[in-house]
Amino acid sequence: MELSTGNNQNNPGGSTPRLARRQAKPKKTVVSINGIQIGGSEIVVMAGPCAVESREQLLETAKAVQASGATILRGGAFKPRSSPYSFQGLGEEGLKLLSQARQETGLPVVTEVIDPRQVELVCEYADILQIGSRNMHNFPLLKEVGMCRKPVLYKRGMMASIDDYLLAAEYILKQGNEQVILCERGIRTFETSTRNTLDLSAVPVLKRLSHLPVIVDPSHGTGLRWIVPAMAKAAVAVGADGLLIEVHYKPEEALSDGPQSLYPDEFAQLMEDLNKVAQAVGRKIARLVVNH
Amino acid sequence: MELSTGNNQNNPGGSTPRLARRQAKPKKTVVSINGIQIGGSEIVVMAGPCAVESREQLLETAKAVQASGATILRGGAFKPRSSPYSFQGLGEEGLKLLSQARQETGLPVVTEVIDPRQVELVCEYADILQIGSRNMHNFPLLKEVGMCRKPVLYKRGMMASIDDYLLAAEYILKQGNEQVILCERGIRTFETSTRNTLDLSAVPVLKRLSHLPVIVDPSHGTGLRWIVPAMAKAAVAVGADGLLIEVHYKPEEALSDGPQSLYPDEFAQLMEDLNKVAQAVGRKIARLVVNH
Amino acid sequence: MELSTGNNQNNPGGSTPRLARRQAKPKKTVVSINGIQIGGSEIVVMAGPCAVESREQLLETAKAVQASGATILRGGAFKPRSSPYSFQGLGEEGLKLLSQARQETGLPVVTEVIDPRQVELVCEYADILQIGSRNMHNFPLLKEVGMCRKPVLYKRGMMASIDDYLLAAEYILKQGNEQVILCERGIRTFETSTRNTLDLSAVPVLKRLSHLPVIVDPSHGTGLRWIVPAMAKAAVAVGADGLLIEVHYKPEEALSDGPQSLYPDEFAQLMEDLNKVAQAVGRKIARLVVNH
Amino acid sequence: MELSTGNNQNNPGGSTPRLARRQAKPKKTVVSINGIQIGGSEIVVMAGPCAVESREQLLETAKAVQASGATILRGGAFKPRSSPYSFQGLGEEGLKLLSQARQETGLPVVTEVIDPRQVELVCEYADILQIGSRNMHNFPLLKEVGMCRKPVLYKRGMMASIDDYLLAAEYILKQGNEQVILCERGIRTFETSTRNTLDLSAVPVLKRLSHLPVIVDPSHGTGLRWIVPAMAKAAVAVGADGLLIEVHYKPEEALSDGPQSLYPDEFAQLMEDLNKVAQAVGRKIARLVVNH
Repeated sequence: MELSTGNNQNNPGGSTPRLARRQAKPKKTVVSINGIQIGGSEIVVMAGPCAVESREQLLETAKAVQASGATILRGGAFKPRSSPYSFQGLGEEGLKLLSQARQETGLPVVTEVIDPRQVELVCEYADILQIGSRNMHNFPLLKEVGMCRKPVLYKRGMMASIDDYLLAAEYILKQGNEQVILCERGIRTFETSTRNTLDLSAVPVLKRLSHLPVIVDPSHGTGLRWIVPAMAKAAVAVGADGLLIEVHYKPEEALSDGPQSLYPDEFAQLMEDLNKVAQAVGRKIARLVVNH
Repeated sequence: MELSTGNNQNNPGGSTPRLARRQAKPKKTVVSINGIQIGGSEIVVMAGPCAVESREQLLETAKAVQASGATILRGGAFKPRSSPYSFQGLGEEGLKLLSQARQETGLPVVTEVIDPRQVELVCEYADILQIGSRNMHNFPLLKEVGMCRKPVLYKRGMMASIDDYLLAAEYILKQGNEQVILCERGIRTFETSTRNTLDLSAVPVLKRLSHLPVIVDPSHGTGLRWIVPAMAKAAVAVGADGLLIEVHYKPEEALSDGPQSLYPDEFAQLMEDLNKVAQAVGRKIARLVVNH
Repeated sequence: MELSTGNNQNNPGGSTPRLARRQAKPKKTVVSINGIQIGGSEIVVMAGPCAVESREQLLETAKAVQASGATILRGGAFKPRSSPYSFQGLGEEGLKLLSQARQETGLPVVTEVIDPRQVELVCEYADILQIGSRNMHNFPLLKEVGMCRKPVLYKRGMMASIDDYLLAAEYILKQGNEQVILCERGIRTFETSTRNTLDLSAVPVLKRLSHLPVIVDPSHGTGLRWIVPAMAKAAVAVGADGLLIEVHYKPEEALSDGPQSLYPDEFAQLMEDLNKVAQAVGRKIARLVVNH
Repeated sequence: MELSTGNNQNNPGGSTPRLARRQAKPKKTVVSINGIQIGGSEIVVMAGPCAVESREQLLETAKAVQASGATILRGGAFKPRSSPYSFQGLGEEGLKLLSQARQETGLPVVTEVIDPRQVELVCEYADILQIGSRNMHNFPLLKEVGMCRKPVLYKRGMMASIDDYLLAAEYILKQGNEQVILCERGIRTFETSTRNTLDLSAVPVLKRLSHLPVIVDPSHGTGLRWIVPAMAKAAVAVGADGLLIEVHYKPEEALSDGPQSLYPDEFAQLMEDLNKVAQAVGRKIARLVVNH
């Protein structure tokens, strides 16, 4: 029998095994990267620029987010842009810059992979592979990262029900890779005052149905810098195991997602605020024990 | 010029006055009921059963929520039910029971009005008039409550964009009643694991665009008891000025919305937890100064 | 047992009677107005301006749509406008103009009622009472028109599932008024290139589940004049029993919905085209037998 | 300047070239396959099973749809299934069976490709490459089919606005492949009585904004066999250049999408009905001139 939320009677997948479900594994999955535990009692903050643009941009931003307490560095080298005429990322050059940033700061790196042919390459550089919202149903890509032995940050599609999402996660888990981090990043609704509608109820629902850790991306979930801190605090209060936040050392010059990227000082303030909310719900923000 | 969120370029209403907007009144509106301030620094918790069912049910529930720290009692006498074959509320008899409960507990009462012909009657008994989601665009009703001198708890429609919502609020404000409390209660999306999708980003958006207080109803916003505490904490973290929570002394016997009503002991625990989150964001939960 | 579409397993309303359902009445309901049959083999076209603005505007438009073959005149006297600062309709004066237009053209009149206190008044003038999308869940209003002995054109809410819609229709039917005409007028989705998304699949679904006639409003369903003819033809092809189309003798001067109103010559062309599509699906467009 | 529908003021992509837009190419694109013109005056019907399951299943179905007048054979060899535990298609074996079916019937073949690494392989067998809804934003795959010289049937994502869709089509066109056939196949909304909501207004909108041909898939757009004929007729009435319809010689035994597949005799009846509707809108259904 499947656990359910109590509202949805659907049971897609029928009697087949469902590796992402609590029934398959009652104990919570904790994903471990260089001593950082995602899905444990501490809340992990991943931060950095949307796209890797240059050595200076990445390094300056990485140092700033590290100084404020982020423990994982985000940054895209391969960018799935809505328009082919927009900046598409630096590719392997971007991966190398991420690798350098990791060396200089000690921060593990999460970066997106969008092509099954590049999974091996991205694996060489990344500590966590990211599957973006638009690729939630890209099954060949899911199988490929399922065959990796690197953790996968797997984002919910913007029009995917939670059932769809957990069912598609099976494509990764079935290959033997159980280190999957789920991520709510906003769904598409009729509301236009925010870019997407961040569905924070997805966090408790996912944690009830699945043993996998669940984080929240309030940057893509709203598309608006000024609202990110409030939504990040709410995400911690609702029970998220981590956050993915866009920070840019000069957002007004960003080649992508500038309007939703925090300034470094805003991020520093946010980290202080998040600590308080984390404590109010009996948790704390993870800190990096640097020994490099 | 209208303030905007930065995402939505719409400006419905054009150059006409917009009384709900910050431009019309830079100072925040604080709605005051028997010394309780809604929209001030404290967070107001309104709790009680979905529908008034009997003297015992209402009194027992009222005392329980009061004991845990709720400062306003909710309860429906006129119920807008999806089916005409469901319990429709006790009508005036329900209003009288609410009045008795107020006398016995000292808690002011919020109750729904669904018919313009009953506004006068409901005004005699209620401290706050509630306009439900399905009546967000019921203009004759809005005009009628706009002519009252009672505060109005005005819920967002499940299909209404924030622009629609603030524009429709003008129907109340334009009649001279400025004591309007906005309320996010979930929007309709494709997701079915919760009854609605509680749009918590609506709270900071509404507070940015309007001077009116904003509360959240996590009970209707999710439809599921077990998720209400997590969403209530998130609502406080995101900046809500209050909460509207369904509590029933015996949810399994409730004539409506039992599956989303908290047990009294769950509500007591939640109030303790909310206090911590409120403090983490620099606020506190309002307490009633009883002198009856 | 309830009929279903095969996709949705919901059965709201449980074992209670469902008067709108085929199970309650296997024979199709045909609504008859002055010899015009809605829900029979012929397709009925209702046309006219969004709002009654003046005697000239109404008369000129009425004569034009009649000349092209419309058999029912539409026009709003009480307008539920999103903004209280927009034109709200002429009220009873508008009803009188509709009555005059009927006398001069012989066309029966459909007009909206938005307030339960005005149902009696509107009944005096109208041949069909219209309940608009925003009032689909206005239960006191539904009960009031249910007590009338006039046919009701009852529009689907823009965020109402078909199950919600048919369940709410019970509020009218339960009062003894079975002359209900259902109307698909567009639902709210994420798509913004049209004002709403006209859900034409609702027509066969409604006709499968219910015995009531089903018409389509492509004007509100799209909000765009240029697309109305294509969607009107599709509505006939899909099996609608009628159409509700906004036509204005001078759309560029319309006080409401000008951008979606057809010019009289566009409407004349459309009527010719509709005749061909109707014949292709074994039906024809109803014609008025005038004897005044 | 961009053409617009009149409702949506967005202009994503700014001043960059937009190859899919009418401004870039005022003349309509007609895609030609073995003498069949898609996007011309005739309406092209593509039909066949969801998935290729066996030689017998494919051949029998192919002969049946050909006998009824379909001019292109559809069938999936690589299936993007929601669950990894469902039938995933026969792979290259399926492509070979499609090739045999083409030889025996003379019908050109459309089949889906889901992995950029398989584009070359699929190109060897297919006459038209299909990109499914879930891959609308699979940019590496779009680039790969853009480098082919085979026509591409490119489906709208169930979460994609029309602007998103046309912008993503640029990824194909920019590589030099202009033989793109757009396809409306249903969007995701709150309505659950059909599997998706077939957005027929997308057809005139796409034809207004773009020079590319537009077809409709009523099978996936509704998920329900009994509603497919009505929606197919509506699609022709609204102006579609073609249809993609699932037919199975034994739907009750289908390994995928059985509930939405027509029986051969239903399809035969539908083709007769479509002919009448096509004529009513001044077009006709394309017929194959077989010379094999």
